[in-house]
Amino acid sequence: MDYGLLLSKVERTSGTRKLTQQDLLYESLRRAILDGDIGHGSRLLATRALAEQLGIARNSVLYAYERLTDEGFISASRHGSIVNRVSTSASTIVARRDGAQAHETRLSLRVRNLPRERTSPDDPTPFRPGVPALDEFPLAQWRASMERAWRTVAPGELGYGNNAGHPALRRSIADYMRVSRGVRCTPEQVFITSGTQASLDLCACMLADPGDSVWVEDPGYNGAKAAFQAAGLRLVPIPVDAAGMAPTQAHWDRTPPRLMYLTPSHQYPLGSVLSLERRWSIIENSVARGAWIIEDDYDSELRHSGPPLPSIQGLAPDTPVIYLGTFSKTMFPALRMGFMIVPASLVNEADEALGEIARQGRVAEQIALADFIDSGRYARHLRRMRRLYQQRRAALVAAIERHMGDLVTVSSDGGGMHLTMRLDAPLRDRDVSAATRAHGLSIAALSTFCQPPAHDAARYNGFMLGYASIRAEDADAVVARLAAVIRAQGA
Amino acid sequence: MDYGLLLSKVERTSGTRKLTQQDLLYESLRRAILDGDIGHGSRLLATRALAEQLGIARNSVLYAYERLTDEGFISASRHGSIVNRVSTSASTIVARRDGAQAHETRLSLRVRNLPRERTSPDDPTPFRPGVPALDEFPLAQWRASMERAWRTVAPGELGYGNNAGHPALRRSIADYMRVSRGVRCTPEQVFITSGTQASLDLCACMLADPGDSVWVEDPGYNGAKAAFQAAGLRLVPIPVDAAGMAPTQAHWDRTPPRLMYLTPSHQYPLGSVLSLERRWSIIENSVARGAWIIEDDYDSELRHSGPPLPSIQGLAPDTPVIYLGTFSKTMFPALRMGFMIVPASLVNEADEALGEIARQGRVAEQIALADFIDSGRYARHLRRMRRLYQQRRAALVAAIERHMGDLVTVSSDGGGMHLTMRLDAPLRDRDVSAATRAHGLSIAALSTFCQPPAHDAARYNGFMLGYASIRAEDADAVVARLAAVIRAQGA
Repeated sequence: MDYGLLLSKVERTSGTRKLTQQDLLYESLRRAILDGDIGHGSRLLATRALAEQLGIARNSVLYAYERLTDEGFISASRHGSIVNRVSTSASTIVARRDGAQAHETRLSLRVRNLPRERTSPDDPTPFRPGVPALDEFPLAQWRASMERAWRTVAPGELGYGNNAGHPALRRSIADYMRVSRGVRCTPEQVFITSGTQASLDLCACMLADPGDSVWVEDPGYNGAKAAFQAAGLRLVPIPVDAAGMAPTQAHWDRTPPRLMYLTPSHQYPLGSVLSLERRWSIIENSVARGAWIIEDDYDSELRHSGPPLPSIQGLAPDTPVIYLGTFSKTMFPALRMGFMIVPASLVNEADEALGEIARQGRVAEQIALADFIDSGRYARHLRRMRRLYQQRRAALVAAIERHMGDLVTVSSDGGGMHLTMRLDAPLRDRDVSAATRAHGLSIAALSTFCQPPAHDAARYNGFMLGYASIRAEDADAVVARLAAVIRAQGA
Repeated sequence: MDYGLLLSKVERTSGTRKLTQQDLLYESLRRAILDGDIGHGSRLLATRALAEQLGIARNSVLYAYERLTDEGFISASRHGSIVNRVSTSASTIVARRDGAQAHETRLSLRVRNLPRERTSPDDPTPFRPGVPALDEFPLAQWRASMERAWRTVAPGELGYGNNAGHPALRRSIADYMRVSRGVRCTPEQVFITSGTQASLDLCACMLADPGDSVWVEDPGYNGAKAAFQAAGLRLVPIPVDAAGMAPTQAHWDRTPPRLMYLTPSHQYPLGSVLSLERRWSIIENSVARGAWIIEDDYDSELRHSGPPLPSIQGLAPDTPVIYLGTFSKTMFPALRMGFMIVPASLVNEADEALGEIARQGRVAEQIALADFIDSGRYARHLRRMRRLYQQRRAALVAAIERHMGDLVTVSSDGGGMHLTMRLDAPLRDRDVSAATRAHGLSIAALSTFCQPPAHDAARYNGFMLGYASIRAEDADAVVARLAAVIRAQGA
């Protein structure tokens, strides 16, 4: 047994951190025993002899032997330190595995069946939807808010905090949402989450059991579908038209929902607004059948042309609506801050349930955000972004008309951060989308938002383009590139 | 119709935020129409007349009428602005609901059946387990780390970030864990989460489907049980003895697990260490049956007496183990930062799945934490806390012997932040626990960690006491109070 070799092997694999001599020896021996390099029944060198051989202190060797004894790897006997039979050896385990079910293929079904996006959410290629104009965010102001907030945090506030979030932020959000979105709520109804994906997970778990039906817009937001599928729910796709989600009487009768997911202010991805008449019908039917409505109001604050229709939540008192908001679009995604506004009748139970299944904390971030809202900096930033996105949209639409007006038709839309366009050329949106990715562009195919994704591809053959990050002066060049890729596909 | 009254009603309910005159009028009219105060078919006052009556600019009235028209609440006709029939009215909805299934009782079964803790995790009463000594945390150092981190964040980093977390933090954790816990891993295997509860949610979703069996220690950690139940899994309680979780052959044959949850370094709540022999047996059986092991190493860094047994994860190469770590105990809970170390074979699939069901971000916090670890401040803080908790445990145990040695027997234990003790007096632990709560103390009854909670109450009749926040000099007084409450129960 070459102990020096053992040591150098562990030294090489221990990363950038320095091990003490005694830890290095302990670790080397442990690995050697585990990996079968020192067989069971072997006798280790006497401590003095090993210390001399390695040129280290005898105390280091004593430490390593003692620890290995404590942990059951070796036993002290009259004949010295003897290696125990600690396992059928690691190699046996590996060999057995090859014969057994392979773990690699044993991910859960719910995860294997998730709708897959092809690109990461942070993909910096042009047209990627969902990420705001990060370089226009007032980072210095936010940094100052964070520094101020950290200076107010007392040690006692470093714990888990209130189940529902920091009272100051809940109050700021309630005040803001009542005015800006016509939401009817008290601060007690506001629950802080780490963003819409977390809100969706919590809603699915809290309001529905595995196997229950959830209505989703078709085409619709894949992130919501992923959350519901992860929670074990059954997705029921409901068609969308120019007035939003359009359930028929047959839908209500044959596949009544336990839960439904709506983007009423700006349907994702198509951009339609749910009509007032449909809003009432959905509320009335939901009340009659005991269904819950999740209202995802992801970008209504960024609408360019006048205020959007107020929330469904606020149409009547005590609607069965969980209203979801996020600061990922209006502030920045890395903030990981969003909220749910639950019906007053649900506050106590939701508070209790969230205490068991979720954790809060993040006190400084919440204080800083409340300060950002209350001081008016949030509203000011939003006003700037609305104007900016309106300009960017106009520049993009003009460039599209110029370079590819014969290939596509842009949908009219109240704004936000993305637009959709129908593909008029005889091409499949997915093929074009794949081709654009190969050219460093990334336009999402509308057919991938359908459920199942293959469905009705003729009707939804087109693209969704994010424009928040495309400067007006760059629109012409990038659209020219895009048009070239599409034309090459047609040829 | 008294328009002035309407306005004042909305003004009163709009919170602390000021509405403009035009928004106030719009909102007042909208509410009045929705609530039936202005019936459908009614004609609104002419704009000029209303402006005069309210003493506001006519443009404000025009704005409000236009917006209501756009949104379908009123229609312009030759006779003026007429209120549409927008709904069967809110009051009908409320009335209908009373006849329909009440939403209030329609929370999901999985949430209604959660094991309930009685107190909030931030309850400041003495003995509350799980929260570290917050006033000993080097808050000024952390504040400085955060400020430095924010200064390095570029606008482009404000997006969603890498699915698995910031590369710098993943590398710091991998380096640290290899040395301190014998974990075998590369930085690619480390996935940052917002803490153990989030890690458990992700593991349950990624590795098991609704109805699958998950083995949990009995007694065991209720937070883990809540996560598994929320994910729709079936809990199989496995008894625990002095050598940790003790599954029998019958358990393996009759209720084989898809997933199992272990606290091998310091069983929660009893404190036993899983023996090396059991570790091998569990690994071998899991490999043979394709089961996944979740190793929750929640407080091994805080062990007082020598290093704990190394992780199960590192016992052999490629063990089917997801190793969970958290910074809630070693740093502070409000940080909301933890991690999973997944097998190398799972890295790509986990990365892809997490991209669909979770969101990252929080770049400054991750950079600051990596800096805290790499600079040695983390290890220094841990050394201080280990010594502190050792002193606090010793003071608490001495006080218990002094004041109530005849009532309870304290278990021996390698340390951490809590201890357990058996109740020797003829009392039920739950009754005593309830009585302590009434006296501003909070000791958890061991029987509430059993599954189902009523099970085997005779065997686990005792308490779990957190001591991290009880200063050595305060131990005597607080234990004297506790002893008095218990003796009063016996009388």
